[in-house]
Amino acid sequence: MSPARLEAFTDGVIAILITIMVLELKVPHGADLDALRPLLPIFLTYVLSFVYLGIYWSNHHHMLHMTKRITGGILWANLHLLFWLSLVPFVTGWMGENHFEPVPTGVYGGVLLAAGVSYYILQLTIIAAQGANSPLAEAVGRDFKGKVSPILYVVAIPLAFVNEWISDAIYIGVALMWLVPDPRIESRLHE
Amino acid sequence: MSPARLEAFTDGVIAILITIMVLELKVPHGADLDALRPLLPIFLTYVLSFVYLGIYWSNHHHMLHMTKRITGGILWANLHLLFWLSLVPFVTGWMGENHFEPVPTGVYGGVLLAAGVSYYILQLTIIAAQGANSPLAEAVGRDFKGKVSPILYVVAIPLAFVNEWISDAIYIGVALMWLVPDPRIESRLHE
Amino acid sequence: MSPARLEAFTDGVIAILITIMVLELKVPHGADLDALRPLLPIFLTYVLSFVYLGIYWSNHHHMLHMTKRITGGILWANLHLLFWLSLVPFVTGWMGENHFEPVPTGVYGGVLLAAGVSYYILQLTIIAAQGANSPLAEAVGRDFKGKVSPILYVVAIPLAFVNEWISDAIYIGVALMWLVPDPRIESRLHE
Amino acid sequence: MSPARLEAFTDGVIAILITIMVLELKVPHGADLDALRPLLPIFLTYVLSFVYLGIYWSNHHHMLHMTKRITGGILWANLHLLFWLSLVPFVTGWMGENHFEPVPTGVYGGVLLAAGVSYYILQLTIIAAQGANSPLAEAVGRDFKGKVSPILYVVAIPLAFVNEWISDAIYIGVALMWLVPDPRIESRLHE
Repeated sequence: MSPARLEAFTDGVIAILITIMVLELKVPHGADLDALRPLLPIFLTYVLSFVYLGIYWSNHHHMLHMTKRITGGILWANLHLLFWLSLVPFVTGWMGENHFEPVPTGVYGGVLLAAGVSYYILQLTIIAAQGANSPLAEAVGRDFKGKVSPILYVVAIPLAFVNEWISDAIYIGVALMWLVPDPRIESRLHE
Repeated sequence: MSPARLEAFTDGVIAILITIMVLELKVPHGADLDALRPLLPIFLTYVLSFVYLGIYWSNHHHMLHMTKRITGGILWANLHLLFWLSLVPFVTGWMGENHFEPVPTGVYGGVLLAAGVSYYILQLTIIAAQGANSPLAEAVGRDFKGKVSPILYVVAIPLAFVNEWISDAIYIGVALMWLVPDPRIESRLHE
Repeated sequence: MSPARLEAFTDGVIAILITIMVLELKVPHGADLDALRPLLPIFLTYVLSFVYLGIYWSNHHHMLHMTKRITGGILWANLHLLFWLSLVPFVTGWMGENHFEPVPTGVYGGVLLAAGVSYYILQLTIIAAQGANSPLAEAVGRDFKGKVSPILYVVAIPLAFVNEWISDAIYIGVALMWLVPDPRIESRLHE
Repeated sequence: MSPARLEAFTDGVIAILITIMVLELKVPHGADLDALRPLLPIFLTYVLSFVYLGIYWSNHHHMLHMTKRITGGILWANLHLLFWLSLVPFVTGWMGENHFEPVPTGVYGGVLLAAGVSYYILQLTIIAAQGANSPLAEAVGRDFKGKVSPILYVVAIPLAFVNEWISDAIYIGVALMWLVPDPRIESRLHE
């Protein structure tokens, strides 16, 4: 299997997930602006999840770009990542409909954590298949972001029961951290 | 990232948006033609939004055709465009179910405006990355349509509170204006 | 725009339509076989529509295979075809949920007719762009199937008000007629 | 039609099926962990079906990799497989919502059986088109897994009426059997 094939399938799943999430924005019955007000938290959660899926899509592409050959292990590590990403619309809808209450906020963080860990496993699987001197291994380096994100999620989940806005702020912070393109990988790509 | 990759992802999202919109046409319970009558405004809005998404798909393709390299900025400007397009099924359903009432009609125009502006930003981002002498910059030229469309939307939104049919007429007019293929870009493509 | 691009987009839309149709098969509440019985007409309509979309997908591919260049006209003739195909899930659900009653059966035929006519228009548009001596023009020849199908739909629609089973039989007959691969196009492809 | 084309279409349908299944995980109204409890059987069924679709996707890819030319027969044998796979979200939702009761459990096995048989038919169709000395024929060999899976499903379906957990165990067992990559095909690919 060529990396292009795996990438096209992943692109397809992420494209569908992004669009399916918007179905949680149920068309309201009223025809005035008040009818939109209860949708505001759902909309904001949608924006956050959209950005997260965009980050995964973009980083996944950069990673696959440095992958020469797809093994069975990489294939299933990738499906494992897609599995957790496929739960994003569900937790987005749950957190959005429940106005950022503690349990849905914590579960949202749990799915982000599982997605982050499965992305990390995928990265390790690719590096293991290519050797420690592969371009990906060098580009990733110490992988500060990849290691600090799960820690932040682990911190954010219990904090949802103290004050869910702290957790939300951490989720947004992690997203902003990733939004900045990774200079190490970028620089390798343009060498 | 190659332009083909970005284009395939965008194609996927637009293809899904077009098909998800049709889910707002809920199967009626009755089995006679009367049962279809309340669906008529939803159907007409669907036609309008279908044409708009078709225009974005077609113009996006022409633009990407003149883009050599995808930077991180282009990637996120493109996701930004997809974000606003992803709200089209929602506002289509809302305007359709509320028989073209003022607020949904205005909000529909607001999403068209945001999509138009984000398309314009994407175009500027590509031109900025390629230089003022790039084929896209030359082909776009003064970009009459790209500049006049947002102005027309801005005019149409408040007019929805005077008479929503005026706004609908403007939305249809802008779509017709874009339906005509852009002779400047077309001519450059066939040079 | 390359034919491959147009084909990939069309493939995407048809793949989504096929899968969205299955959402009309709503999960029943009961847990015995009786709970499945009311789903039988929906299931049968789903099978019929699945075969129709499969036929369009397959024939569309053959046609695009003989198309060298995509003009703006071809692009919009193709979107026009996709528009009518996008209504297939809706009429499938309506006919299925109403146990093949006359009006939904007639409307189902109406959408098949519109899709057939728009396919024919797309074919004419491609031939017009390529000239009367193009491979497609020669392969299509007198196009018996393409001309007889709309006639059969036009006959089937009013017959739905006499006995809807006659119309259903005609729809199935037309599908079977197309299921047989077109020997003229096939032979040209393998020359 | 090139194998790449058929593969892209199949990838698209499977990507959509995987994501549509997650829509059965309906967002609960409560905001505590109790609200998630009734979703547990649906979630577990989703995991099982996700793994099955992943297996089909992966094996389908390996098979197409050894297919040189797509005939009309292969095209329709492939659509036939997609038809049965398209029913997976429906039976997943039914089995999940009914807490693994006998009839939905048996019907779930019935769809797995039909998908397995249609995959086998597709494999036979490709081998028939390529000859008994083709790489696929050699790689598949006696095809132990392909023959034993339908037998296991046939055993599992009636056992659902004795104790549905036996059937569930068999479904999981078959999935695990396939999860292990096929050494014969893998070895041929890397020769």
